[in-house]
Amino acid sequence: MGGKPTLAVVGATGAVGAVLLRMLTHHADVWGEIRLLASSRSAGRKLAVREEESEVLALSEENLTGVDLALFLVPEDVAARWAPIAAAKGTVVVDTSTAFRADPDVPLVVPEINPHAVRIRPRGIVASPGCSTLALIVAVGALHAEFGLAELVVTAQQAASGAGRAGTAALREQLALVTGGELGTQPGDVRRAVGDHTGPFPGPVALNVLPWSGLLAADGWSSEELAVREETRKVLDLPGLPVAATCVRVPVVAGHAVSVHARFERPVTVGRAHEILATSPGVVLYDDPATGDFPTPADVVGTDPAWVGRVRRSMDDERALELFVCADNLRKGAALNALQIAESIIGA
Amino acid sequence: MGGKPTLAVVGATGAVGAVLLRMLTHHADVWGEIRLLASSRSAGRKLAVREEESEVLALSEENLTGVDLALFLVPEDVAARWAPIAAAKGTVVVDTSTAFRADPDVPLVVPEINPHAVRIRPRGIVASPGCSTLALIVAVGALHAEFGLAELVVTAQQAASGAGRAGTAALREQLALVTGGELGTQPGDVRRAVGDHTGPFPGPVALNVLPWSGLLAADGWSSEELAVREETRKVLDLPGLPVAATCVRVPVVAGHAVSVHARFERPVTVGRAHEILATSPGVVLYDDPATGDFPTPADVVGTDPAWVGRVRRSMDDERALELFVCADNLRKGAALNALQIAESIIGA
Repeated sequence: MGGKPTLAVVGATGAVGAVLLRMLTHHADVWGEIRLLASSRSAGRKLAVREEESEVLALSEENLTGVDLALFLVPEDVAARWAPIAAAKGTVVVDTSTAFRADPDVPLVVPEINPHAVRIRPRGIVASPGCSTLALIVAVGALHAEFGLAELVVTAQQAASGAGRAGTAALREQLALVTGGELGTQPGDVRRAVGDHTGPFPGPVALNVLPWSGLLAADGWSSEELAVREETRKVLDLPGLPVAATCVRVPVVAGHAVSVHARFERPVTVGRAHEILATSPGVVLYDDPATGDFPTPADVVGTDPAWVGRVRRSMDDERALELFVCADNLRKGAALNALQIAESIIGA
Repeated sequence: MGGKPTLAVVGATGAVGAVLLRMLTHHADVWGEIRLLASSRSAGRKLAVREEESEVLALSEENLTGVDLALFLVPEDVAARWAPIAAAKGTVVVDTSTAFRADPDVPLVVPEINPHAVRIRPRGIVASPGCSTLALIVAVGALHAEFGLAELVVTAQQAASGAGRAGTAALREQLALVTGGELGTQPGDVRRAVGDHTGPFPGPVALNVLPWSGLLAADGWSSEELAVREETRKVLDLPGLPVAATCVRVPVVAGHAVSVHARFERPVTVGRAHEILATSPGVVLYDDPATGDFPTPADVVGTDPAWVGRVRRSMDDERALELFVCADNLRKGAALNALQIAESIIGA
């Protein structure tokens, strides 16, 4: 590519877009033109990027012309329609939606784990995994490289912002409705107080845990839960890996927390796991319960890495470890991983 | 026992005591005298039981005289000291603390699972399991009876009231400090807003998930996590059962939620699991994600049973099931189970 490449941010006005635009300010010298695209409804808005105001343009064939790399931060249906159009123009697309993650001709990339995979992209599209997979996979992948992963059982406690701006708004609205009283002690009292202010959620998330995220998929599984399984298998290149995931929504603004039970091919020790996690890129080991050192969503939000604590070896199986991992679902869980992929493609 | 037996409630003024006294109103005809005992600090307070005011007496040898059955709802150290004193007077003690749960001469009882165990009590003491074990064990025990349990991996999302009145107070106080603003988006902003209002928790629980509950036990495990393992093994009489538990605290007032991965000796189907759960005492099956039917803590608080939903068979193992179970940690998780044990002992 001659000169600095042109970047298009497709879906610049959403929750992940806002985080990405702030990140681009710290990566200001990588890109030439940065073009902000969104639905025609948002066209004409001004957003700050690299400390300058930039006008949002409508997503169109014309506005995708001359783009070297397009970051797609839009829902599945928009990505499914527009990513192939961009790719046909020679633009490399990095897509964060679910549209292409399972496509065998689209690599699914986590730069700390499978950076080489970006190079083989028959459709001109590279996919970034979902936020729950991204929260756990850097830590799990580092341990896999040493011990050989044999099985995963995970519970992902997802923040409200994983459902976008509407998710955060619904949580804040609900909290205002339930805080200050005595709610949470009688069946359904929180549900009645929240009423129809459920936003994108299937019930109240304030003062509650909602065991549902995504759409209904096969046999009672949610799309989010099956995505964790399929994405983890693809990124780690372990197509037969047993993965059982439960995804729940918790009253947290941002920061996914995942409790991980990982069984390996070889015996593990906490000491060696600590050494690996302490030296793996994209991971911060924060693990000393004696001094209260363990990651929490509220403490790691706004940071780039996956934070890992509560590392324990099974009392019953010398090959199994428990971990508790927290990561910002809008950063490593979305904008950051996509930007890392984009920078690796242009060789920045 | 001649006439109706005399019941002592030791620790009547606590959070579990309050729930128990309300329950006794609905079991009014079972007991003769009901004596309320607490620390000398609380003596002289009046509490309502069976719709009458009753004066709280100080816990003393004298006030334990003539008691047929004593329900102990007090911390471990108080139970360790006073339960043997009561038992030496011929009183049957039902203890809800951790003091005797691991004692081989003290049965650990969940009436739906091992009712026969109350009969052999060499020390005159019967123990009731902890709230996280109780949330999951009725459902898991029913499935065990059919399929033969081989392994458990669980994440218990514990409500603030599991830490007593101080836990609920801390959550409400914290929510007032973090609601209404934009907190939860910057590293540590919730922690700073909460300041030292952490109450019994090792950090902020509002807008957060705290991966810690209990005391530090061996090798990084918390006492709560090891208790789930040891109590489940003892109640199910499976001393070699592999159990890996993670206990976290979530910003919920009451109602523990547990995601359960259970592997069995024999193949399972969701249909047969549904049949078993729908007909097991103490369990409500509430499982139809297509219509949004799954249990949540805010919906099941104040109810007696364990509610089970999200029943799924592993995509990778025909012998493994996922479940999501919710139960009121102050009812089945404490007061109710103890009262069920007590009533089974006196033959009510």
